[in-house]
Amino acid sequence: MTGTVYLVGAGPGDPELLTVKAQRLLVGADAVFHDHLVSDDVLRLARSGTEVVDVGKRPGGAATCQDMINELLVEAANRHDVVVRLKGGDPLIFGRGAEEADHLRARDIAVEIVPGITSALGLLTIAGVAVTSRGVAAGFAVVTGRRAIGDTDWSRYARIDTLVILMGVGNRADIAASLIAVGRSGTEPTMFIERGSMNSERRVRATLTEVARGGTVISSPAVWVVGEVTRDTIECLAKT
Amino acid sequence: MTGTVYLVGAGPGDPELLTVKAQRLLVGADAVFHDHLVSDDVLRLARSGTEVVDVGKRPGGAATCQDMINELLVEAANRHDVVVRLKGGDPLIFGRGAEEADHLRARDIAVEIVPGITSALGLLTIAGVAVTSRGVAAGFAVVTGRRAIGDTDWSRYARIDTLVILMGVGNRADIAASLIAVGRSGTEPTMFIERGSMNSERRVRATLTEVARGGTVISSPAVWVVGEVTRDTIECLAKT
Repeated sequence: MTGTVYLVGAGPGDPELLTVKAQRLLVGADAVFHDHLVSDDVLRLARSGTEVVDVGKRPGGAATCQDMINELLVEAANRHDVVVRLKGGDPLIFGRGAEEADHLRARDIAVEIVPGITSALGLLTIAGVAVTSRGVAAGFAVVTGRRAIGDTDWSRYARIDTLVILMGVGNRADIAASLIAVGRSGTEPTMFIERGSMNSERRVRATLTEVARGGTVISSPAVWVVGEVTRDTIECLAKT
Repeated sequence: MTGTVYLVGAGPGDPELLTVKAQRLLVGADAVFHDHLVSDDVLRLARSGTEVVDVGKRPGGAATCQDMINELLVEAANRHDVVVRLKGGDPLIFGRGAEEADHLRARDIAVEIVPGITSALGLLTIAGVAVTSRGVAAGFAVVTGRRAIGDTDWSRYARIDTLVILMGVGNRADIAASLIAVGRSGTEPTMFIERGSMNSERRVRATLTEVARGGTVISSPAVWVVGEVTRDTIECLAKT
């Protein structure tokens, strides 16, 4: 009899942005396997004595790494009742949670997936950026900026009102230039949110032209939102 | 001295999909104003004696309704310390949370926004649909289908790998026909998730052509996802 593996979204970092279900599973877990993006504040919720394993950023290629994680989860499910695989944000959005779930399912190990607040949207909401502000944006798109320049066809995203770009800090100047090349205005406002939801959160505003010229100083991880919705954001007054 | 208004996302329906912060605020609220999409199971978390007001779907035009809600929130903040404005999903995604926050801020009332799991993504994750499955979808877009046919330029969304359409049940046949007209394949698989995360959840698969022909029976509310990522979804085995 094997245990169950829960693929759980850890949200953007603040433990209060876990779901109630994620918190319950984490507190009751026998073993926790987590990515490097999961915050220490979240991991501290695990009971003392719980096996907590960092499976983020291992030496070796990505494929080897993923194979190793898959096997670690299988092995843990053979020893424990409740195994939590904790991923930053939501487990199926730019994670490889689907591959892990497929691998486990092929071995008849029970899997349940628990959604989380994705940084792509949750950090914008906290900052008062409404990705679908009425009269300004009828829809939005989310895309990874991590691919090599040229591998993403930015023309696909040319006419979506609001663009949210994840993992795009390193390529930001090239991405901004590509967006201008496919017809977006260089004067379009954008906003970066660095280390969102943590005490050290920092927000940087810049136009596409400014970003394309290399004039912005940003550190990873950061969410980058491009669009008119960043122009007039709600400056919230409260802090709990 | 006025209280603070918290604009809080209630997630898709299951109370365990509230964030820990949303749960804490709801349990401690002096007054709760909620939309019709917020589930009874979530509202039961409010303390007995809390003023709980349904401000969803009032008679009269949408503008009047929104003005009324804005004033109710101002008035509540003048009487209470903790006012929770609870919205289904995330408060700034296809809600009008930003307008409420602006209205309150203009009256010097403290506002804090707490993100929630949006149905647009969370329900797909629960169903094992990875909107950004590696090698299948590099990005996704979310758009409302509620607008009158012709008011949305579907060609903007023609080449985004995964499309999530909210509030599109009523217009689904016309939307499917529009998507085929802008170049998407009629054989493209799609999935509807009705009453997601609730016990009565129901999932319906259909190709774009089948939807365009009017052959699908779906009730609101439902999330509709269009794309290859719906073809091979993870069939999860566990249920907590």
